[in-house]
Amino acid sequence: MSDTPAISPEFPVDENALRVPYERLKDFMTQVFRAVELPDDDAVELARAMADGDLLGKDSHGCIRVQMYVNRIKGGAINKTPNIRVEKQTPAMALVNGDNGMGHLVARYSMNLAMDMAAESGLAWVGLQHSNHAGAAAVYASMALERDQIGVIACVGSANHAGPFGGSDLLVGTNPIAVAIPAADEPPVVIDMATTNSSLGKIMVKAMHGEPMPEGWVIDAQGNPITDSAKADDGVLTHIGGAKGFGLSMVIGFLAGTLNGAAFGSDVIHIGEDPNSETNTGQFIMAIDVAHFLDPTVFKANVDRISREMTGSTKLPGIGEIRMPGTNSWRIYQDRKANGIPITAPLLDKLNTAADEVGVKRLA
Amino acid sequence: MSDTPAISPEFPVDENALRVPYERLKDFMTQVFRAVELPDDDAVELARAMADGDLLGKDSHGCIRVQMYVNRIKGGAINKTPNIRVEKQTPAMALVNGDNGMGHLVARYSMNLAMDMAAESGLAWVGLQHSNHAGAAAVYASMALERDQIGVIACVGSANHAGPFGGSDLLVGTNPIAVAIPAADEPPVVIDMATTNSSLGKIMVKAMHGEPMPEGWVIDAQGNPITDSAKADDGVLTHIGGAKGFGLSMVIGFLAGTLNGAAFGSDVIHIGEDPNSETNTGQFIMAIDVAHFLDPTVFKANVDRISREMTGSTKLPGIGEIRMPGTNSWRIYQDRKANGIPITAPLLDKLNTAADEVGVKRLA
Repeated sequence: MSDTPAISPEFPVDENALRVPYERLKDFMTQVFRAVELPDDDAVELARAMADGDLLGKDSHGCIRVQMYVNRIKGGAINKTPNIRVEKQTPAMALVNGDNGMGHLVARYSMNLAMDMAAESGLAWVGLQHSNHAGAAAVYASMALERDQIGVIACVGSANHAGPFGGSDLLVGTNPIAVAIPAADEPPVVIDMATTNSSLGKIMVKAMHGEPMPEGWVIDAQGNPITDSAKADDGVLTHIGGAKGFGLSMVIGFLAGTLNGAAFGSDVIHIGEDPNSETNTGQFIMAIDVAHFLDPTVFKANVDRISREMTGSTKLPGIGEIRMPGTNSWRIYQDRKANGIPITAPLLDKLNTAADEVGVKRLA
Repeated sequence: MSDTPAISPEFPVDENALRVPYERLKDFMTQVFRAVELPDDDAVELARAMADGDLLGKDSHGCIRVQMYVNRIKGGAINKTPNIRVEKQTPAMALVNGDNGMGHLVARYSMNLAMDMAAESGLAWVGLQHSNHAGAAAVYASMALERDQIGVIACVGSANHAGPFGGSDLLVGTNPIAVAIPAADEPPVVIDMATTNSSLGKIMVKAMHGEPMPEGWVIDAQGNPITDSAKADDGVLTHIGGAKGFGLSMVIGFLAGTLNGAAFGSDVIHIGEDPNSETNTGQFIMAIDVAHFLDPTVFKANVDRISREMTGSTKLPGIGEIRMPGTNSWRIYQDRKANGIPITAPLLDKLNTAADEVGVKRLA
């Protein structure tokens, strides 16, 4: 373990935020989703996937989305009683039809299927069609860790906020990817990243708190930076590494969307603006069973060794600590598991408004 | 097809370069590698993989590497008569032991295996151990295209020229990934990218021609930019998107290296500086058979549709053309297939020096 297990000071923390225990937040969201007629068990599972996102520090992809999901369920965009099913299957791959259920339910179903298949075949790839926005990608990738598997999920973004490299038409989502790799004594190595410089969710969090965006996240149609987070919708999200990030995003779109007969490009529905239309969201999920390649003990010892080499590197001037991907999220997880999930005042307002609207008890 | 099929003016072209036909370059390299005792067929296959890289415009990963490979073969770092073999196999995955043969031979063997497996199972993942530097990654990914498959290859870089995000110790390679996706009438969508802002090969090409590097490719241990391409070895390559690119690079390293029992981190051998040591280079390769997911005609029509949406976007000021990933390489391929591969004066010197050294006829 690191000698300095503090959460990165770069991570936004509101010291005045209410700390709500995980179970309480989960139960609150369960009640909200039951009130809009999701089946009891599905409401629990959805609430768990969302609260797990908050627990991992994915503040932009957890309970902050309650109102948007409620709007979509009430708007008729979501199938409340989906028949999530396998359309095609071999020992290596499956194609899952989410029947337009909540994406969290489709993604959990698919990751469980992938892990079971990988336990047999060493590796499994599951393509998802007729899925929906699934919240924090790391939640699903991380499901693989306790089985000594590597988990992968990539998604067609649920709104086009980026353009092609060199262009300003909104044709591309943030197309995120998450990968979780088990370690032994060190934290697991987990990436969960948009292929744009910022996810839309991170901008939503900044807008909710009235904070500006750094230059480089969003440009206008003339290529000039936009830093007012409330005006992000007027602009174009930029890709990491310019043409390279655009290339990664295209690959994710074709593999997570087009290959599964799901939306990508101009047929992507903007989930924030259109609460009535089915999205046919695509994702792909992969599970890799380490033991089919080599002894997991050897693998995890090497992950630890390499993690320590990286974090032990000479630092550049001004750098307080070198962290592996996922380490900060892992520390946040420990903190929130013990001390509750911080709910800021504007977030509490949003959650209570949603509660009032569907007629359940306020969170606090 | 695009209305403006010209090669991008950003691509470095020396109008005075000799144009050498593909077959001639391939035969020249075949003679060189036979002269250092590679078996006749292996020399042909290696020369083909290298010339294919040049044909695709991967000038940094084709014939420019002849001398380095000759040094490694003569230095005893390479097994000239490897027994490339499958160590483990299921319907979904295989682990290939390259027996320390030339990486090009191991990668071609593994991609052929993956494509045959994917034709049966829909998808196959092949892990490579005891492989070596394999030249241009796009060459192998693109093998999948004619079978209506999607090809993927990712590699642990063959020298550590980057550090962890925030650090300056050279512990990380450029860890590139290539993906090739078939299209119908539009060019195939192909990425072939280092997870650093520049590959080492691109810097080699600039150094050979005495050109500076743009700011942002390489920094020194104080975090200041280095732009003299001859001094790149003194610096640290930066990752695309900072922490995000570092995260991608870690994932590639663990999946391509550690999972296969191959080198990653401090045990990576610098192939340019050490011509005597076995590298245990790791790669992973994947083939996805489109027909197992949906009708390839439908898939490719959608790739075309989306490609046209992207290239038809409103352009940012100063942008002459929006291109899909791989389009410029595809145009270069057409040009070089018809008109020969450009060999600049410094490159010709290098190739002729290598020819003299091993006692074969000069290229020109």
